[in-house]
Amino acid sequence: MAEESRAKVGVLGASGYTGAELVRLLLRHPRADIALLTADRRAGQEMRAVFPQFSPFPLPKLVAIDAIDWSAAALDLVFCALPHATTQKVIKEVLAQAPRLKVVDLSADFRLADPQAYARWYGHEHAATQLQREAVYGLCEVHREAIRKARLVANPGCYTTCAQLALIPLLKAKAIDPDEIVIDAKSGMTGAGRAAKEEMLFSEVSEGMHAYGVGHHRHMAELDQEFSLAAGRDVVVSFTPHLAPMNRGILSTIYVRAVGPAAAEDLHAVLSKSYANEPFVHVLPFGEMPQTRHVRGSNLTFIGLTRDRIAGRAIIGAALDNLVKGASGQAVQNMNLMLGFPEAMGLEQVALFP
Amino acid sequence: MAEESRAKVGVLGASGYTGAELVRLLLRHPRADIALLTADRRAGQEMRAVFPQFSPFPLPKLVAIDAIDWSAAALDLVFCALPHATTQKVIKEVLAQAPRLKVVDLSADFRLADPQAYARWYGHEHAATQLQREAVYGLCEVHREAIRKARLVANPGCYTTCAQLALIPLLKAKAIDPDEIVIDAKSGMTGAGRAAKEEMLFSEVSEGMHAYGVGHHRHMAELDQEFSLAAGRDVVVSFTPHLAPMNRGILSTIYVRAVGPAAAEDLHAVLSKSYANEPFVHVLPFGEMPQTRHVRGSNLTFIGLTRDRIAGRAIIGAALDNLVKGASGQAVQNMNLMLGFPEAMGLEQVALFP
Amino acid sequence: MAEESRAKVGVLGASGYTGAELVRLLLRHPRADIALLTADRRAGQEMRAVFPQFSPFPLPKLVAIDAIDWSAAALDLVFCALPHATTQKVIKEVLAQAPRLKVVDLSADFRLADPQAYARWYGHEHAATQLQREAVYGLCEVHREAIRKARLVANPGCYTTCAQLALIPLLKAKAIDPDEIVIDAKSGMTGAGRAAKEEMLFSEVSEGMHAYGVGHHRHMAELDQEFSLAAGRDVVVSFTPHLAPMNRGILSTIYVRAVGPAAAEDLHAVLSKSYANEPFVHVLPFGEMPQTRHVRGSNLTFIGLTRDRIAGRAIIGAALDNLVKGASGQAVQNMNLMLGFPEAMGLEQVALFP
Amino acid sequence: MAEESRAKVGVLGASGYTGAELVRLLLRHPRADIALLTADRRAGQEMRAVFPQFSPFPLPKLVAIDAIDWSAAALDLVFCALPHATTQKVIKEVLAQAPRLKVVDLSADFRLADPQAYARWYGHEHAATQLQREAVYGLCEVHREAIRKARLVANPGCYTTCAQLALIPLLKAKAIDPDEIVIDAKSGMTGAGRAAKEEMLFSEVSEGMHAYGVGHHRHMAELDQEFSLAAGRDVVVSFTPHLAPMNRGILSTIYVRAVGPAAAEDLHAVLSKSYANEPFVHVLPFGEMPQTRHVRGSNLTFIGLTRDRIAGRAIIGAALDNLVKGASGQAVQNMNLMLGFPEAMGLEQVALFP
Repeated sequence: MAEESRAKVGVLGASGYTGAELVRLLLRHPRADIALLTADRRAGQEMRAVFPQFSPFPLPKLVAIDAIDWSAAALDLVFCALPHATTQKVIKEVLAQAPRLKVVDLSADFRLADPQAYARWYGHEHAATQLQREAVYGLCEVHREAIRKARLVANPGCYTTCAQLALIPLLKAKAIDPDEIVIDAKSGMTGAGRAAKEEMLFSEVSEGMHAYGVGHHRHMAELDQEFSLAAGRDVVVSFTPHLAPMNRGILSTIYVRAVGPAAAEDLHAVLSKSYANEPFVHVLPFGEMPQTRHVRGSNLTFIGLTRDRIAGRAIIGAALDNLVKGASGQAVQNMNLMLGFPEAMGLEQVALFP
Repeated sequence: MAEESRAKVGVLGASGYTGAELVRLLLRHPRADIALLTADRRAGQEMRAVFPQFSPFPLPKLVAIDAIDWSAAALDLVFCALPHATTQKVIKEVLAQAPRLKVVDLSADFRLADPQAYARWYGHEHAATQLQREAVYGLCEVHREAIRKARLVANPGCYTTCAQLALIPLLKAKAIDPDEIVIDAKSGMTGAGRAAKEEMLFSEVSEGMHAYGVGHHRHMAELDQEFSLAAGRDVVVSFTPHLAPMNRGILSTIYVRAVGPAAAEDLHAVLSKSYANEPFVHVLPFGEMPQTRHVRGSNLTFIGLTRDRIAGRAIIGAALDNLVKGASGQAVQNMNLMLGFPEAMGLEQVALFP
Repeated sequence: MAEESRAKVGVLGASGYTGAELVRLLLRHPRADIALLTADRRAGQEMRAVFPQFSPFPLPKLVAIDAIDWSAAALDLVFCALPHATTQKVIKEVLAQAPRLKVVDLSADFRLADPQAYARWYGHEHAATQLQREAVYGLCEVHREAIRKARLVANPGCYTTCAQLALIPLLKAKAIDPDEIVIDAKSGMTGAGRAAKEEMLFSEVSEGMHAYGVGHHRHMAELDQEFSLAAGRDVVVSFTPHLAPMNRGILSTIYVRAVGPAAAEDLHAVLSKSYANEPFVHVLPFGEMPQTRHVRGSNLTFIGLTRDRIAGRAIIGAALDNLVKGASGQAVQNMNLMLGFPEAMGLEQVALFP
Repeated sequence: MAEESRAKVGVLGASGYTGAELVRLLLRHPRADIALLTADRRAGQEMRAVFPQFSPFPLPKLVAIDAIDWSAAALDLVFCALPHATTQKVIKEVLAQAPRLKVVDLSADFRLADPQAYARWYGHEHAATQLQREAVYGLCEVHREAIRKARLVANPGCYTTCAQLALIPLLKAKAIDPDEIVIDAKSGMTGAGRAAKEEMLFSEVSEGMHAYGVGHHRHMAELDQEFSLAAGRDVVVSFTPHLAPMNRGILSTIYVRAVGPAAAEDLHAVLSKSYANEPFVHVLPFGEMPQTRHVRGSNLTFIGLTRDRIAGRAIIGAALDNLVKGASGQAVQNMNLMLGFPEAMGLEQVALFP
């Protein structure tokens, strides 16, 4: 794509939170035009009926996916923000009709490369195994070059982006013991999506905290795959997700043991060096820990590392906005890589605090 | 100032919330450079120590106001986000040293044009009455032309911006009875500033609501002045501010009576027509009411109007982000006007929801 | 019922918030035993599966209403916390089977005494007009004697309890102008119930405020009825409900004009005198305004009154917990009256703040 | 103390959150009378000026500690809710004047039995070492018999109560490896007290999460002492406290490794058996995890335990209300033991949810 060209993009599933966040970012992206928005159950409505914050902005009306003529649409790229399992069928069909279309998929459907791992974690065979093989895992800081050439990118999960950015450089450097990693993660409520469920009502989840999916959360499959790849051996971590009464933000508190004589300061140095030139990963000075509110609305991840009082152990904190770097912001970052745009384009927002 | 010129700007009082919000906006303003940040009690520190969200960005160190050589600084404009009463002394001194400097003042010090009204509401004589006379009241949509030529602009208060945008067109059009206006306003906690006070602690103000300053809030003086100007006669309204457990947002619910045969629909038409070409005021379709969350982080004000069940009466809702259109966003909008920049420059952010 | 007797009570609709609140209060009531809990969709489950806070307490299993043998159940009183419209059919049927059973109904079904007013506000004929005529409106402080003798009590709504306690003494005393009353009410989210609706999700309603039902909220019918009764003439008020990001609490800010020479202090004296001996209504010193958090979890209503700056006008604040005095607490208070128990029995909890 | 006797009690430091919570509980305690409330900076004021929720209740005026004549006061017991370090001097002085007075101290001053450990963690010598030796550590479920006979009880910290109730039975049973314990704790904001600090303002701590005191929080000293006592050997754990945007509640997520062939189910059985007859510790069925909101306002601790996917590892969740079982509720429980009252008296409140 030529340097000054523009891209026509679509969002499949625009009535959910990641869909809305894509629209927020794309509306201000210097080289992307929103040409298509879908929402099957809200087809025919204006986006403002679904998300009133877009009321002042001209946007295409919501349509049903089945009503799209993909070749007439002539899109350069679509973001797919549809539910798990539906997604693989939709993308298979869309790419059959428009094979040159590029796709950034925000669901979990194409994150696992191994069909057997997929079947084990999700309880059914994958419906598009060829695409599964083709898909590139879209953690930009780790798989940047493959993403540039990809047609289909599997945007990572929010929990897993946060934990991977904190741990992958340390695993690659063999600086920590892969057998003693505990990840305690806290997420804001938007991570649970917009489906109307009793357990997500304000009065159910405000003023309290709880863990969920303890011992068997599906995001673990993604962690296993990427951590093992980074370490060059099997890695299985303890991981517990929690819900906190806030809209946005993931905070991962990670307990690790340094290998051999390495001190906490050495681990910090590994992280600092890894991310010295990354636009969206910021390593705090040694001993400072991040807060989710300081990255809210931005595509940044803040990482901090502190010495534990137990010799040889360290505690890492990583914070990101689950809807931005944990979903739609990273999706736009992937689009930028796939379309040859500057990687940070349209993602320069400074965090909204307070 | 030439079309492609850039502006060197400063922020006096950068350690408060409106100061931080100015930095957030100015960091991404295409033609402004942050050349000076002050915070007397934090002088010598980095901005990141005061507001960690700025950690990745290069910013000048915080200095004390007294340490500034104003002619060497060679600024084009300063934003003054200092406490009430201090402000008038500081600005008087600064303008004495740098008479060609432009100033946008976010305090209440220069909002009242009448020295007697000032003395009555604040209990002391104004310390810079000449500047008080010079200052232009900075509600952009109402005083745009005067602002373009001003050296000193008094940025309006958050409550008053919200109420004025809803009512001034109706008062000017003599469409509502000026003697029967009730304004019930709800504000997020950032409106109360960053001073460490017991009554602003999380545990004091979360999970509950209350009114404050009932019957005697100082913002009323500003409303009296501008409403009377708009109506061409004295206007005194009932106004009650409340604190709600949220960070940002003001919601004004306003009860009015239409004059003569005018129906609620006519009032709505007056508002729609007034704001048809305004970039930052959006009038919702008749009968829809705004939510603060849908303007969060943006410079927009949403206004809605609904028929009351009592004949001849209407209920108006107006929502804005108290730190943006209610403070720092409007201050940047004023800067744009004063420096000849496009009025909306650097203020295009779409609201952050959820 | 003899002084030391105990009562066997049931809760129809125990899986909602008012149902849970009834269980919370009844578990610690010295003379009530919970003998029956219903929840049609959760029939067969333990209460702890629906509300884990009851996990340590022995409670009857949830059953379906249709499965109950009302004469075998031999209850003294049931609380009915079922949805609107369903309720009238259920109560009609239950009382047909168990005519000596006493009923406190928490729905809106029996609050309006006038069948025509009911049909106009709800759009259909009432299905139990005879019971509608029999039902006593259960605002204890106003209709105490009728409640003592009632078989069927219509527990008032949360908004209306709050506004009535603030205004009825003033209307009765003809101290305020009935034609110029504006009630601006703010409610916590539990007032909207536990039904899984998108607009009640945490991420939809946290961090923001909005009005709803503007100009046509059904609670107005109840206000019209009771205010007109108190004033001895037709009274129609402006009333706007809002949702605030908190679990519990209603704050009503009420704008009134004193009649004739009466000053705000006189209005305050009327309220103070009216409630001098009431256990659950507390009038704050003149000029102090209430906060919802200070009545949280208690059956108290706090009322404050302040002079407006406009001569002859006053601003009243009233705060209660919508689930206690606004629903289940008042329902227990009604039970106490109906069964001859001390009126405050089981309702002595001190507010939970912070 | 005879079975039907009453106790005259005082609260030193009644203007803080734990002081208010003591008053809330004691106002409804069947055998305690609040005879004294102190608050040095608010001396001479009514309690309602400091905590408006007590406005309807008769309470003694706040006095300064120095103004008290301890023998005339003739109290049976005082609760001491004063800041760290001040406390030891005050209690030493008070007990010198009134040697038969019983004291429940809610500060950290008397929790560490070892003067050297105290000096190491707090950086200064203890000012009342004799009392330090006398004091009994007041975790009721563990030290019940010693508490009954104690004159001075050191009420445990909120974090440490939560972690100890989860781990002590497992350590005593030697069922888990003491060298591999990670405690990740999340606390509501009331745990940080009522002092006016910038970092505790609503806008600083709402809508986000962060860890603090990482690697060096003082509560660790208390954990070390009690865990080592339980295990019969030195135990040093990893412990990280976090602040969550809620008022009340501590959630501890604890990662442990079972010893030898023990499975997660065996660990669960140890906990269930230990607490079978405890009124305030409730072990959830295997695999269920607790939520802080389900114990809000109650003296209960909920404990859950789930199998981790890593063989031999388990994840424990423990939830309590930091102001009740984590502070004032446990203090009343201690009072009950010390005065020979039924242990659960006045502590029967059911949790306030939602």
